[in-house]
Amino acid sequence: MPKQVLNVIFRDTVHPSDPEVIFRLTESCELFYPEETAVARELAEERLARGPSSGYEFLFAETDGIVIGYTCFGPIPFTQGRFDLYWIAVRKDLQGTGIGRRLLQLTEVRIQEMKGRRVYVETSSRKIYEPTHRFYHACAYRTETVLKDFYADGDDKVIYLKDLICR
Amino acid sequence: MPKQVLNVIFRDTVHPSDPEVIFRLTESCELFYPEETAVARELAEERLARGPSSGYEFLFAETDGIVIGYTCFGPIPFTQGRFDLYWIAVRKDLQGTGIGRRLLQLTEVRIQEMKGRRVYVETSSRKIYEPTHRFYHACAYRTETVLKDFYADGDDKVIYLKDLICR
Repeated sequence: MPKQVLNVIFRDTVHPSDPEVIFRLTESCELFYPEETAVARELAEERLARGPSSGYEFLFAETDGIVIGYTCFGPIPFTQGRFDLYWIAVRKDLQGTGIGRRLLQLTEVRIQEMKGRRVYVETSSRKIYEPTHRFYHACAYRTETVLKDFYADGDDKVIYLKDLICR
Repeated sequence: MPKQVLNVIFRDTVHPSDPEVIFRLTESCELFYPEETAVARELAEERLARGPSSGYEFLFAETDGIVIGYTCFGPIPFTQGRFDLYWIAVRKDLQGTGIGRRLLQLTEVRIQEMKGRRVYVETSSRKIYEPTHRFYHACAYRTETVLKDFYADGDDKVIYLKDLICR
């Protein structure tokens, strides 16, 4: 039976300590390349420096004042109500507890509040990302397309999407 | 018979005047949204401010010291030798003269020099972009995928690609 995480608080403001917190959190996942975790940190720095005009929104899950997961998302430039989920990460020892799913659900609510109607997510087809693919399917995301050998030979980009409003 | 443009010089350095030049050039095309031409300018500003670490490379076509076309491109982060062609634009009164094709060919050479092996380009499916689609096909780009209603309802994103090295 999955562990339970109680007393989870969600916040959408970014604190000055968050870039470093995000860096350590994404590193703990043992999933991302070092260049990727560096970018994860940079996006939070950019949000702190430029505010909403950075185009990056955040949602953090905390328990006992400790960040245990987060999402980074934002409107896709030049689109009408399309959003990108740039990052979703949950601390490795708390994966499988439902935190990721709650984070994603609340992120979708936040996107709708920002007049977003559709969410895109891009993921690698590498085997290490198999749980990630299962996660998106479980969260009602559908495979929109696969860009073969996008990241490298044998490493495709899978693009998922979810329409937030039934039309 | 198409017009001929003689004495075209190509350069890959970015001058302090280029952001404004790019803004006016892309505006002259009567093709891009104002937010898009603003971003075209910003990318050149970012290159001037941050150098190669900006991730944006440029190639300009000039005649008599006047910029008549340009490309903006760069390596796609977290990929092995994949490049994005972010911008290609030729002054409206000189379109159809082969400047765009020469710019793209030289851009591909530059990308190969930078160890790039594949180029991606993204374009809208709107009718106004029909000449753009014909241009990419004529330059041996193939449609990799179409993201339906990506930009807005009825406005798809078409992703082209070209492999620069035969494997």
